[in-house]
This record gives sequence, C-alpha cells and structure tokens, in this order.
Amino acid sequence: MKLAILGVGLIGGSIGLAAKEHLGDVTVTGFGRSPERLERARELGAVDRVAGSPQEALEGAQACFCCAPVGGLPDQVAAALAAAPADCVITDVGSVKERLVGAVNDARFVGGHPIAGAETAGVEHARADLFQGAVWYLTPTSASSGLLYERLHRLIVGLGAGPVAIEPGAHDRLLAAVSHLPHVLANVLVAQVAAEGDPPRIGPSFRDATRVAGANRSVWTDIYMANRLAIADEIDAAVDRLRAVAGDLRAGDGDALAAWQDAAGADRKRLLAAESRVGRVHELRLTVPNRPGIVAEVALELGKAGVNIVDLALAPAPDMRSGAITLWIAGDEQAQQARSLIAGLGFAVAS
Amino acid sequence: MKLAILGVGLIGGSIGLAAKEHLGDVTVTGFGRSPERLERARELGAVDRVAGSPQEALEGAQACFCCAPVGGLPDQVAAALAAAPADCVITDVGSVKERLVGAVNDARFVGGHPIAGAETAGVEHARADLFQGAVWYLTPTSASSGLLYERLHRLIVGLGAGPVAIEPGAHDRLLAAVSHLPHVLANVLVAQVAAEGDPPRIGPSFRDATRVAGANRSVWTDIYMANRLAIADEIDAAVDRLRAVAGDLRAGDGDALAAWQDAAGADRKRLLAAESRVGRVHELRLTVPNRPGIVAEVALELGKAGVNIVDLALAPAPDMRSGAITLWIAGDEQAQQARSLIAGLGFAVAS
Repeated sequence: MKLAILGVGLIGGSIGLAAKEHLGDVTVTGFGRSPERLERARELGAVDRVAGSPQEALEGAQACFCCAPVGGLPDQVAAALAAAPADCVITDVGSVKERLVGAVNDARFVGGHPIAGAETAGVEHARADLFQGAVWYLTPTSASSGLLYERLHRLIVGLGAGPVAIEPGAHDRLLAAVSHLPHVLANVLVAQVAAEGDPPRIGPSFRDATRVAGANRSVWTDIYMANRLAIADEIDAAVDRLRAVAGDLRAGDGDALAAWQDAAGADRKRLLAAESRVGRVHELRLTVPNRPGIVAEVALELGKAGVNIVDLALAPAPDMRSGAITLWIAGDEQAQQARSLIAGLGFAVAS
Repeated sequence: MKLAILGVGLIGGSIGLAAKEHLGDVTVTGFGRSPERLERARELGAVDRVAGSPQEALEGAQACFCCAPVGGLPDQVAAALAAAPADCVITDVGSVKERLVGAVNDARFVGGHPIAGAETAGVEHARADLFQGAVWYLTPTSASSGLLYERLHRLIVGLGAGPVAIEPGAHDRLLAAVSHLPHVLANVLVAQVAAEGDPPRIGPSFRDATRVAGANRSVWTDIYMANRLAIADEIDAAVDRLRAVAGDLRAGDGDALAAWQDAAGADRKRLLAAESRVGRVHELRLTVPNRPGIVAEVALELGKAGVNIVDLALAPAPDMRSGAITLWIAGDEQAQQARSLIAGLGFAVAS
C-alpha cells in the first residue's frame, strides 16, 4: 500500500512509523513545508520517500493523512483532494471537525481525530506506539464512500487505535467539553492563583490540576478559534453550574453540596466505565442496500451509542444492488446492543 | 519525647509512623473513637500505646496532633487543650484554618495543615514517608508561644515536611484557589460531560482532568462548609474570568486568546518555580525582644514572601528581656530576601 502524509510532525511522523512497523507492505511518502524537517523525518524512518509537492506525494497513493495544524487544514485537505487519485481515501487529524468536514463534499474524504499526545511537538518525538489503544474519531458523512471508509477503518486499527464514528458537530461539542473546556479551566485556575501575588509553596495537586495550562500558544489559539462557539457554549453551561454551587455554599446548604459531590463521583464512574469495555469479539453480518452513505449511517449509529467497532468489512453482492457489511464488536452486551441498533435502522442481522 | 495523636487514620497514622521512624526516642500514644481501628493502628506500629480517652493520651505529652475530620476539629482541639500539660504544643491537620484558629486563644495552640494524600483514607494506607518533601502550613498567631512553635517546627521538619507559616485567613483563601476550586471545577467538568448522555470513549485527558471529582463525600462536604465563603468568592472570580474568555471566543478575538494562553503559561511557570527553590543553607541570627508572638511575626513575614524556613531555634538571653532566633534558609536569594524582610520588621540580623 502507498500512503501519503502531508505534514510530518509528531502525529504525521508517528503515523508513518506505526504504518511501517505494523502494516506490512507499505511505502510512506511525506511532504511538508520545511525541507529540513522532512529530511529529518526520513532519517528517523518516519517516511520512506520525500516529495517536493502534495501532487508528488499523492501520486498513486491509496490513503492520505493530512496532518497540518488545525488552522492549515482547509487548504491542505483541498490540495490533497485536488491531487489524489479517484480511489484514494483522504483523512485529517485535526481536533475540530465541523467546519472542515462541512466545507468538503467529496466521497474520498473522511474527517479524523486521533486522541494522542499533543504536549510535545515535532517529528523527533514521533513514536510507532503513539496510537496504541487510543480513540481515533472518524466523521464519515452520507457523501463518504463505504469502501474507502472501510479501508481507513482498517488502517487505523492497524496503527493500533480504536476508530469511533461520530457526527462532526457532536465531535466538536464533545471535545469542547472533554478537552477544550479543561484547558480553559486550567488557565483560569492559574490566573486565579497568580492573582494572589507570590503565594508560598502550593503543593503537587495544583501542579496536576494545571498541567495543561498555557499549552502551546499557536496550537491552542487555532483550536479555540476553530471551535469557538461550542467552547463558549460549554463555558456558559459551566458558569451556570458554578453559580449554583456558589449559591449552595453561601446558603450553607450541606445537603445540597453532599448530593452534588456524590453525583460527580457516580457520573465519573459511569463515564470512565465506557473506557474499559472489553470482552469476546462477536461477528455481525448485515445485508444493506448498496448505496452511498450506508456505512457511515451504521458506523455513526453505533458510535453514538458508545458501541465500538473493532473491525469492519464490506462485500457488494454480485448484482451490485445490495451488499454485506460484517462488523466485529467486542463484548456480549455491546454486540447485543449493536444488533438492536442495526435492526432499528431496518437492516437484518445474521450472526 | 511523648507524642499524642487524636484520630489515627491516614494522616494521624502516618504522623505516628514517621515520628517513630525519624524522630529517635519517641513514644506515641493514640486515641480515637473506634477501639478496633485504634488497635489496628497499634498492630501496624503507628502508635505504641492506646489510650482510653484524650486525657489519658495527653498525660505527660510534649506535643499533640489533632487529626479529626474538619467538622470534628473544634471539639477535638478543645478536648486536647483541656487535657494537655502547660508545656505541650497542640496542633491540628485540618485543611481549613480561620474558623478553628479564631476560636482558640491559647499559647499552646498552633494550627497546621500538611499537604499530603487525601485520596485514600484509613490507617491501613498510612506511611512513614507520606510527608517527605510536603508543604506543611502552620498558622501561629500573636498568642502562640515562641518556644512551642519552635518545637512544632522541629517536629514537622523531623517528619520530613517543610513548614510554611501563613495567616489563617490567607491560608483559607489560598487553599480555596489552589485546592478547593480545582475540586469544584472537576465536579463541574464531569457534570458537563455527563449531560451529553452516553458519550463514546473519551480518552485519558478527561480522566486526568477529573481525577479529584466526587472525592470522599463526607470529607469534602466538611471542607466546602468550613471554607464556604472563600470558595464562593473564588468561584465568583472564576466566573468573571470564564465570561471574559467566552466573550473573546464569541468575538473571534484570536489575539486576545493567544495573549491569554501565553499569560497562563508564564504564570504557571512562575508559580511552580517557587516549588523548586533550593540551594546552600544560610544561617541567620537575629536578636528580638522576648515577648509573645515574636516568632509568629517573623515566621509569617517570611512565609508571606514565599521564603521557607528550613529550621529555626530560639535562645532567650540570660536577662529574659531579649532572645535570639536562629533561622536556616536555603538558597542565596531567599536568604538575602529574609535578611531584608527581617530588617524591615526592625530587628538586626547577624550572619
């Protein structure tokens, strides 16, 4: 397989290293703005070949990863789509999806976002195991080719990650809550303590709570700007919650505070339980009409319910009017849930 | 030395273990409400003897640590003061100080608060090294005996911690910002994500950011209630900051967001730099009038400026009208700062 990587830093470089280590017969061609860094990526083994342009990188490619910072992705994805062969899947690794995905209407494009190390930048920090066990969001749309989605899903499983399908808008709202808001709160915490002047030593818990404060300025300004309305909405909701707590504190309402503390513990437990769902892998086979968007529809329905697809395969019927999708789902409960969700979409499941 | 520990859980038990391991010739007597847990503490070596009452525990004691949960401290400290010999120093380990310290007017009492592990409770988790390198706040007042403060300072250095003197009110405001607000924000984050229904897998950063969410209900309800006005004020300030950020996001003001991100990084670096100040230890000797509160005055002045006193010793002059305080300060810069702060108080420093 021929892979193209545009932008060979921490993420692009790690995709190259992981592909070469885990995917067997693969040739990785890299392109980036800085010839020096590109050459460094080649020396480190993250790419096999260095291209002088996106066109050259995409020649004969079956898959392309666009790895520019969030602000540079629209142009990079457009360049990749302009240069890519008709049967090449194009994806990106940006941490904000709706604006980018909404601007592209091409069967070859599926937005993506691996949840993996953003604290050290540069190809020097790239590692073949960066994606091991990581969530890798994919945002297929009804325009996405099912066969190209299947190829991308396989590739990402091959890199060691777990693909999770999600609508672009839902992704951005989720990330605003799960990742962007924590960065905002960490910054606020630091400002709050800094306002106390020169406090005495403050202990390790503050260090932990503010670990992400003031993270890379250009990366984070890009993210804030790209997802600004969703983040502002999350902030508004957080402000409402904070005012309610301040009210309980001023009223001295210990019962309300105790109930609130309990609820936080229970919610966290429930949210993290979803992280560790594993079990026997079930194979589910479903027959579907052979039309665009069908794979995205199934993947998004399962992703929405938190059901992870370990692997998937497509096979069109000889008459090309219908096809079979085979899904592999880990865990008895998840497999059962997948069966009823798929039945709810109106497709028959054999397993 | 004879030590009394009232309440032998994680903190009380660790004080006992650390005292027996590091303080040489020491006998530790414990008292607690549950005879079973007290017996368990003896089996684990956290106490040498088990007392049937606070009176029995304090018989002949030179120092007493009150280790009840925050809500139980006022009664426990009162019982200790009623039972303690005239030359016994009494301290506590509660994470909120102003109300407790304000209610006590006794030369033998110095409030305290070690910044050490609160995530696992019970004497089973007690460790002799729990306080190694930890900040241990002390809140002496003008009523506190200098000689008893010196003894307590020594004891705490002996347990492996670094004593930092601070006014009770300043302590509570600092802790509201540095510890209590992070707990509030972690709870809010969890509630925010839980409100999204059943999100797909959410990655490790959320786990980190919400590590303290929903921590032990009774411990934290106690803390919230005891420090409720300071926490509510911190929440108000955080709300103001959050609204400003939401405004910049909605306005799409990338420059303001970039500047804010930079400021958070710079502030955090400055705040954490205070954590790692070390260097050659300087000995400072000052002559002071021999009156109550003088040691507290000096210790608080240095604590306020973030200057840590590694060790201190008192020696009254033969006429008992003046005395010498010897301070040991680590680091050239800190020692220089200590000299000018002490000069500012009107005392001569020889070194």
